[in-house]
Amino acid sequence: MTTLDDLPIRDDLRGKQPYGAPQLNVAVRLNTNENPHPPSAALIADLAEAIRRGAATLNRYPDRDAVELRKDLADYLGHGLTGRQLWAANGSNEILQQVLQAFGGPGRSAIGFEPSYSMHPIIAAGASTRWIEGGREQDFSLDPGRAVALIEEHRPDVVFLTSPNNPTGTALPLEVIRRVLAAAPGMVVVDEAYAEFARAGTPSALTLLPGHPRLIVSRTMSKAFALAGARVGYLAADPAVVDAMLLVRLPYHLSTLTQAAARVALAHRDELLGTVDALRAERDATVAWLRKRGLTVADSDSNFVLFGMFPDRHAVWEGILDRGVLIRETGPDGWLRVSIGTSDEMAAFRAALEGVL
Amino acid sequence: MTTLDDLPIRDDLRGKQPYGAPQLNVAVRLNTNENPHPPSAALIADLAEAIRRGAATLNRYPDRDAVELRKDLADYLGHGLTGRQLWAANGSNEILQQVLQAFGGPGRSAIGFEPSYSMHPIIAAGASTRWIEGGREQDFSLDPGRAVALIEEHRPDVVFLTSPNNPTGTALPLEVIRRVLAAAPGMVVVDEAYAEFARAGTPSALTLLPGHPRLIVSRTMSKAFALAGARVGYLAADPAVVDAMLLVRLPYHLSTLTQAAARVALAHRDELLGTVDALRAERDATVAWLRKRGLTVADSDSNFVLFGMFPDRHAVWEGILDRGVLIRETGPDGWLRVSIGTSDEMAAFRAALEGVL
Repeated sequence: MTTLDDLPIRDDLRGKQPYGAPQLNVAVRLNTNENPHPPSAALIADLAEAIRRGAATLNRYPDRDAVELRKDLADYLGHGLTGRQLWAANGSNEILQQVLQAFGGPGRSAIGFEPSYSMHPIIAAGASTRWIEGGREQDFSLDPGRAVALIEEHRPDVVFLTSPNNPTGTALPLEVIRRVLAAAPGMVVVDEAYAEFARAGTPSALTLLPGHPRLIVSRTMSKAFALAGARVGYLAADPAVVDAMLLVRLPYHLSTLTQAAARVALAHRDELLGTVDALRAERDATVAWLRKRGLTVADSDSNFVLFGMFPDRHAVWEGILDRGVLIRETGPDGWLRVSIGTSDEMAAFRAALEGVL
Repeated sequence: MTTLDDLPIRDDLRGKQPYGAPQLNVAVRLNTNENPHPPSAALIADLAEAIRRGAATLNRYPDRDAVELRKDLADYLGHGLTGRQLWAANGSNEILQQVLQAFGGPGRSAIGFEPSYSMHPIIAAGASTRWIEGGREQDFSLDPGRAVALIEEHRPDVVFLTSPNNPTGTALPLEVIRRVLAAAPGMVVVDEAYAEFARAGTPSALTLLPGHPRLIVSRTMSKAFALAGARVGYLAADPAVVDAMLLVRLPYHLSTLTQAAARVALAHRDELLGTVDALRAERDATVAWLRKRGLTVADSDSNFVLFGMFPDRHAVWEGILDRGVLIRETGPDGWLRVSIGTSDEMAAFRAALEGVL
């Protein structure tokens, strides 16, 4: 039998394992930061109708530039944005891959401040971009002086910031982004996958777009929009950045079905984002409960909570799994991450954790 | 205003134009080798129903490995293949990008024999893989001795063959593929995007998979399956090749909607492939008519026909467009390519070409 080792794969892939959280068939899944609320019957009916209409021309290629979807996304984001400043792809992973294909690549580098979204270095590797691993303070915050010093030392072509950060959960003060923008010689990506969950008064990096043509704000419909299955990520930036995306995107990368589904979801945004307040409340209650239980918890602006510290986090993770609740063993050693589910799911999580502790 | 030139894009992208055939709003579109037959009402109803079912869990990520779809694709291809030997992505463009991310990349090279599918060198560039441009004989065939000599000289990591070739239309004798496989030091990709349209008795490279773990056969549902809007490409290869794809794919790259749509289309394959015979007959009639008209025409195993030669092909293309028929100005200078449409569309094409000549 032929194995991977027998094939002429790239040396940097040898011995690697496929990325991904275990997809286990467990009753309560709180491991991939999905929104626990399925689409309503009304949304599903509209989606099926939109697909029915779109399917009539499914023998034809989709709109290569997804013009109508991009207008709808601009309208959703506000901040005076137009469709010319928006770009969409199959999940924000593909958005970030395209950004690195245009602005990173061989002979270039990207920096991130870890612990952070673990796909950033993986996507950088896939785009042959050298990864520079920056760090964070003890409390997972980003010290702007130290971040700027690291950027000035390494002069990376792409800087990844995350607000809120995953897996720690905390949003970034705008001042840090401003200082990084002033120091960075290349592009600055602010990954705002969880922005809709931020605590009241947390500003978005979208407010910094005017006057900052090297700023890219990436977003996703997988989290607050409860549309992980449809795979829609997008970015907002200067129109020139969108022009760069046009040079590296695979033609017709976004299907007619995906474009239609995203537009239906945007039309139903009041319903979809209506779940966000409840999830925020559930999150704040989870943070309070964990702290009362004596655990250390990172401030969360997201739909997940990082908590610890455990001398043997794997045993805790497994104990919780044995009780029918799947959370994520991720982040720095000693910590675990739980996604915010429904009230019932969080009760199951609390009971499982109590059982283990 | 910021322009692309003001941004720190990669040097190899500077001055480039976005790829893509013009998407013009013309009555008769015979330019991108789409299948002219839209899905039936029955298929659309099944698709809407499948989407309705799938949408109930659209808040959850899709099956990351598309296991059921890959089984269905194996069942469709036959040749004793199993789902372990199949891999699917958003169009065969993404399939080829993943192949190059695993087996090409910086410091590595890929070869193709041009004129051929113009995305091959573009996808290679996007994956930072050096492109080696091989040639073809005067009649667009591939001389195995010369192909082997070129491979032995350059020792490319990936060889691209195309059968049938685009834009010339002709399938490749199995013997050429066999000899290339024996000579190639790395992977050999046979792009069979148009395989279903081949003339009777044309064997597929799928027959060579046993005993050839470095062979990859790529396919698409955009052409014979009339599903260009859904963006489904796939490959068949040794399971070890699929393991390599798992290392480079972006997690959850294929949406729940895409997986569902592809499976519905595969269930309706008798209907969808039922259009192939009619298109083949229309193609053969087009070839005969063009030849009778005194034009030179490449043998076609595809749903398109390359014809010439014109001292000023752009003028001919424009004259046909002025008469409401959009064909493609592609391939070697002096040639034009027309996709095979319905009988009415081909009548319009013939009338338009008559008008110009």
